[in-house]
Amino acid sequence: MKSKFCPNCGSNNVVRKIPQGDTHFRQVCMDCNHIEYENPKIVVGSVCTFQDKFLMCKRAIDPQKGLWTLPAGYLENNESVQDGAIREAFEEAHAKIKINNLLAIYSLNHISQIQILFHSELIEQNIKPGIESLEVGLFEWENIHWDKIAFPSVKWALDNFRERQNLDTFKVFTNPQ
Amino acid sequence: MKSKFCPNCGSNNVVRKIPQGDTHFRQVCMDCNHIEYENPKIVVGSVCTFQDKFLMCKRAIDPQKGLWTLPAGYLENNESVQDGAIREAFEEAHAKIKINNLLAIYSLNHISQIQILFHSELIEQNIKPGIESLEVGLFEWENIHWDKIAFPSVKWALDNFRERQNLDTFKVFTNPQ
Repeated sequence: MKSKFCPNCGSNNVVRKIPQGDTHFRQVCMDCNHIEYENPKIVVGSVCTFQDKFLMCKRAIDPQKGLWTLPAGYLENNESVQDGAIREAFEEAHAKIKINNLLAIYSLNHISQIQILFHSELIEQNIKPGIESLEVGLFEWENIHWDKIAFPSVKWALDNFRERQNLDTFKVFTNPQ
Repeated sequence: MKSKFCPNCGSNNVVRKIPQGDTHFRQVCMDCNHIEYENPKIVVGSVCTFQDKFLMCKRAIDPQKGLWTLPAGYLENNESVQDGAIREAFEEAHAKIKINNLLAIYSLNHISQIQILFHSELIEQNIKPGIESLEVGLFEWENIHWDKIAFPSVKWALDNFRERQNLDTFKVFTNPQ
């Protein structure tokens, strides 16, 4: 968030300026000179398969409540990107997964979000909705709710997974053109 | 940083607790209920080659001032991971590069840092130190200052690049075992 108050000294004398020697605008406290750096956040998740089916989660929370997404969410401090993707699958679908390999890195510049998405496989078929999901399911490609997908990158990742299945070589995808 | 004051209301009544419905400790303001989420930061950079040489930068700033590193740094808001790596090469070595492909994603859990490293190639041979470098150079593998490397992941990335040159297939690396 853009701080209204300085997190270091509590002053409300915070301005947006380019600090000396810097190249970017920052939130700078004019009382204690504290600079608050804002950086992109990382979302980790996976296209999780079980045989020829795909794990999808119907969102119980906004944004896009009621629409379908992959198990994914914000990476936490002190966590690897792989462990984050495993945790998210469990939190959202009580799904126990193993990471197979990296599928894509998408840069969503407009919201300063970097998505790191893996291909994972379900270890046990038992799944049930976590607190952030209304419903979870394993869908064959044709039966995915394509008209009710929560975010563009969900479709990108599914399409990229499908594309890679037809390639002879390993590939990691970026934003589609 | 861990806020001492609430960035939303300026109160110093900020405590570390697990908010209701959450699974992780957060900085929570007891006056306005603002939750300050802290997430890992992303470092982007590259193993940048020119023919059989590697671009290295001698750090002009702490940490590890005087030791050698790859052109890399914190990803900025509203920036793709590729553009960030290109920007860092220019800022640190006035190097104009093109991104070839992804080399590695390292999770440095102890400092909550995710490093996304590419293989890049120098487009023009002209390089000179940027403000964060004391010296920059193009080194043959044998002539890299192996005894003066700034960070373990610099060596990981160089080793991973070298390993991949001997593979028949594309591969993206993670932390070494």
